[in-house]
Amino acid sequence: MTGDHELKLQCPLPVKNATVQLAHGGGGRLMQHLIRDIFIRSFSNPLLAQMHDGATWPVSEGTLAFTTDSYVVKPLFFPGGDIGSLAVHGTVNDLAMCGATPLWLSAGFILEEGLAIETLQRIVDSMAQAARDAGVSIVTGDTKVVDKGKGDGVFINTAGIGVVAPSVIVGPQRVAQGDAILVSGDLGSHGVAVLSVRESLSFAGDIASDSAPLHRVVADLITDGIEIHCLRDLTRGGLASALNEIASAAGVKLSIDERAIPIRDEVQGACEVLGLDPLYVANEGRFVAFVPEAQVDHAVAVMRGHEVAKEAARVGVVNGRESSIVVMKTVLGTHRILDLLSGEQLPRIC
Amino acid sequence: MTGDHELKLQCPLPVKNATVQLAHGGGGRLMQHLIRDIFIRSFSNPLLAQMHDGATWPVSEGTLAFTTDSYVVKPLFFPGGDIGSLAVHGTVNDLAMCGATPLWLSAGFILEEGLAIETLQRIVDSMAQAARDAGVSIVTGDTKVVDKGKGDGVFINTAGIGVVAPSVIVGPQRVAQGDAILVSGDLGSHGVAVLSVRESLSFAGDIASDSAPLHRVVADLITDGIEIHCLRDLTRGGLASALNEIASAAGVKLSIDERAIPIRDEVQGACEVLGLDPLYVANEGRFVAFVPEAQVDHAVAVMRGHEVAKEAARVGVVNGRESSIVVMKTVLGTHRILDLLSGEQLPRIC
Repeated sequence: MTGDHELKLQCPLPVKNATVQLAHGGGGRLMQHLIRDIFIRSFSNPLLAQMHDGATWPVSEGTLAFTTDSYVVKPLFFPGGDIGSLAVHGTVNDLAMCGATPLWLSAGFILEEGLAIETLQRIVDSMAQAARDAGVSIVTGDTKVVDKGKGDGVFINTAGIGVVAPSVIVGPQRVAQGDAILVSGDLGSHGVAVLSVRESLSFAGDIASDSAPLHRVVADLITDGIEIHCLRDLTRGGLASALNEIASAAGVKLSIDERAIPIRDEVQGACEVLGLDPLYVANEGRFVAFVPEAQVDHAVAVMRGHEVAKEAARVGVVNGRESSIVVMKTVLGTHRILDLLSGEQLPRIC
Repeated sequence: MTGDHELKLQCPLPVKNATVQLAHGGGGRLMQHLIRDIFIRSFSNPLLAQMHDGATWPVSEGTLAFTTDSYVVKPLFFPGGDIGSLAVHGTVNDLAMCGATPLWLSAGFILEEGLAIETLQRIVDSMAQAARDAGVSIVTGDTKVVDKGKGDGVFINTAGIGVVAPSVIVGPQRVAQGDAILVSGDLGSHGVAVLSVRESLSFAGDIASDSAPLHRVVADLITDGIEIHCLRDLTRGGLASALNEIASAAGVKLSIDERAIPIRDEVQGACEVLGLDPLYVANEGRFVAFVPEAQVDHAVAVMRGHEVAKEAARVGVVNGRESSIVVMKTVLGTHRILDLLSGEQLPRIC
């Protein structure tokens, strides 16, 4: 929408004490106001300003990566983040796990009638800030409103497009016998942070979510010549589920060492109180990388150069093709099979 | 996920009488089953089969179009379609309105705990069929589950990527004085069809949704040398809202003739009963095109060559730059300003 004509429309969207109404999703004047005063203003960029049914832009020959995630985290705000920053980080990270540089995001909002406009503005501001920090643009979007009691405040979907550098191929099919398994940092903070607010618990050390963009760590690994075979961010289901998915897709046995897995004492303690296994708890700023054993020291050093990965560590190895299985050597020296969870530990954590 | 290893997992997802549980969104075994047995099986294609955090594929130099929409239509099934086919058509059409050939879609599902798996399967089947019919692939996806009472069965977000043919530029900025305004067919059926089910009304003639993919009509217009200046699909807010958005973005006065606007008698009658103005009712298989007056006959002939646009008609003209306004000459010969609606006619129609 070109700015000049928009100025002719009347008074701005009232924010103070205002709430989302069904008409904000109806295609009429209220929706125009919401789009102009909240979304366009906060996400400001030339592609979004095209205000057409979609954004268009020229690309060079290359490899695209495309991903999507919906975010339904409850509560909307938690220590270390909110649904807005999460919706940017999660999709940026999914692109990073494809070895791609994240560039363009879409944003689809499903708002519940009665949501405070101020709450929406806070979320959108956080999303815009997270996008700026990550160097991505929110170029197209959509808003729907559902009746009160048929949603839960805000759900956000982001889809993302990135560009994969030439010759980078990352995926379970490249996982090889002897590969080392690295994790990028300490585990479990996101899930515990969200749960602590939801259950009104307070833990020593004020555990904050690890939610953060990871693409710069991956980019540096690639630039530094690390031959990355596979990447996976450790979201729903945590490290144990990610390793199971990779073991299954690659058809390999993975062996990890519990003593090598970085988990903060406060998180370990909180998990014990809550009856959670931190290996299955969601993270939003942690990933696992499969690299050749010979490059482990180099890769860990590159990762530790980033604040978000300063506790990166080698936690295991690919050591067999006889079965798709994840085995952990425990602190007691015994062996435990880490399987996929059958039930649900922590609903609506992302 | 490579098929061989998956076969080692146990029994398939039970469908009969089964319902969605929170654990279906938890990242564990139940989610794996849902993804494998419902989504991968139905949407089957090589990019989705990569089963990574995103899909990657090579592209040539060119112009990309990117769009997103969430679908919250109520009820989930209606005459002429359902939320699944709608989620494909809506996003395919947004790409078509950018002058793009739609190619790749993402699908993000927000499921309410307790949803029947059979219902989900029906929706996914319909989505897969609509994607095949439109020649697009669903290449990446996501599933979240929210607690019972915090959603409404199923919400679907689709984002889409298409490729714009060289030299095609479509957008409000190209709308020119003297351009003719064409609509691709009769208006109002989608909104009336959805509302008739929601309100348990039955109308003479069994009005079915017009939901359909429109990209082939647009492609033929481009191939036939029609110089398309602007396109917009007539979804939420209908023809009147779309014309207002274009008038505002382009800074022009649009004049349309009520007698020229195709509306079926049954739809007109239903709208009168329901107190709706069909010019503001949502369509999901109709668009407006701005083309040079000299090409009107040619363009209408091309459009009418498609079943979905067989009632295409010229309905008006761009005739001034003095104000961003839409004026309609009524059947009585008087003039009426068509403004954006301030309230909401029909919530959750798409």
